[in-house]
Amino acid sequence: MKIGVLGTGDVGRRLASRLSGLGHEVTLGSRTADNPVAAAWAREHQGHHETFAGAATHGELVVNATGGLVALAALKAAGTANLDGKIVVDVSNPLDFSQGFPPRLVVPAAGSVAEQLQQAFPRTRIVKTLNTMHNTLMTDPAQVPGPHNVFVCGDDQAARAQVADLLKSFGWADRQILDLGGLAAARCVEPLVLLWISLSGTLRTSDFNFAILR
Amino acid sequence: MKIGVLGTGDVGRRLASRLSGLGHEVTLGSRTADNPVAAAWAREHQGHHETFAGAATHGELVVNATGGLVALAALKAAGTANLDGKIVVDVSNPLDFSQGFPPRLVVPAAGSVAEQLQQAFPRTRIVKTLNTMHNTLMTDPAQVPGPHNVFVCGDDQAARAQVADLLKSFGWADRQILDLGGLAAARCVEPLVLLWISLSGTLRTSDFNFAILR
Repeated sequence: MKIGVLGTGDVGRRLASRLSGLGHEVTLGSRTADNPVAAAWAREHQGHHETFAGAATHGELVVNATGGLVALAALKAAGTANLDGKIVVDVSNPLDFSQGFPPRLVVPAAGSVAEQLQQAFPRTRIVKTLNTMHNTLMTDPAQVPGPHNVFVCGDDQAARAQVADLLKSFGWADRQILDLGGLAAARCVEPLVLLWISLSGTLRTSDFNFAILR
Repeated sequence: MKIGVLGTGDVGRRLASRLSGLGHEVTLGSRTADNPVAAAWAREHQGHHETFAGAATHGELVVNATGGLVALAALKAAGTANLDGKIVVDVSNPLDFSQGFPPRLVVPAAGSVAEQLQQAFPRTRIVKTLNTMHNTLMTDPAQVPGPHNVFVCGDDQAARAQVADLLKSFGWADRQILDLGGLAAARCVEPLVLLWISLSGTLRTSDFNFAILR
């Protein structure tokens, strides 16, 4: 399918490359049409690069891989009409690095970035997922052995199911995908990034993931 | 050893009972000296019951099993001098149920309840642990199979080691105990309670735990 990926950082390029490799027609979106990183990615991956609005227009499904603190602005730049009715897969985390490391978690009044986006774009179907792990693991879950998990939440059940299918195409097994239900659960998973950062220091690796054992 | 457990709710009584069963001399502390729940517990478990101050005085080690929103008040009632130099094992979560379910997480200005307590009682050694699971699992980790984890953090390394020994006496294996280092990590583990609550609804059980797989 046609997919727009907003954000040209490590996460955006990782997801765009994987999606492109799976046969999707991917447009990488950035604030400006002439972003050299996006242009280089498009050349290397036979993809396209565009503004946020161009990528959103192109995509039948859109991935928000911009930072959580700028996600609302990025989606506004993408344009309400261009996102109308579409699924936006939100993988962002609202981290403020302005006071150094470790960053602080910024909790929007809506409870989470995902809920903030949903409020601002009521006709778009926001699905939160993949924000609780390193970007290399997002698209290659076998990198960590065992029954670790990826969380999915969103108010539209059909959208959650479609995103789960996308995750399966990345290699996630059915039993690894934990459907948390409505988007309010995003306020439970976004803070996990703080523990992830702490653990990456303690364990001295980014090759780990959260699991729910029972 | 002599242990004071502050808080007579499910968590406090669970921990007090387990500690008593392991041969420790336990005093269950509450706001008032004549708390009938504490008195019943003491009769049943050959333990003692006292005010917060009495339990803190009695304990060579103190467990804070009061709610996170009243923990500071409980420790103030326990008394600075009575906690001087002692380890306080903080298992609390700052949940506000006043607006119904699900509760909201209240993040103190210090970053976490544990850090708030440490700032207020600088000569006490606060160790955060066990707040990320159901109380039955705290003292019986085998209830959930597999390599699930308990997190430990605190600014005093010797105190963390002593608390890890206490966890081992509950049945936690060495490799299950994840030492996150300094107490600032408490701000990473306290928010986990929100995800725990969400998961307990999704999974329809409280017999699960977080694990870090790598």
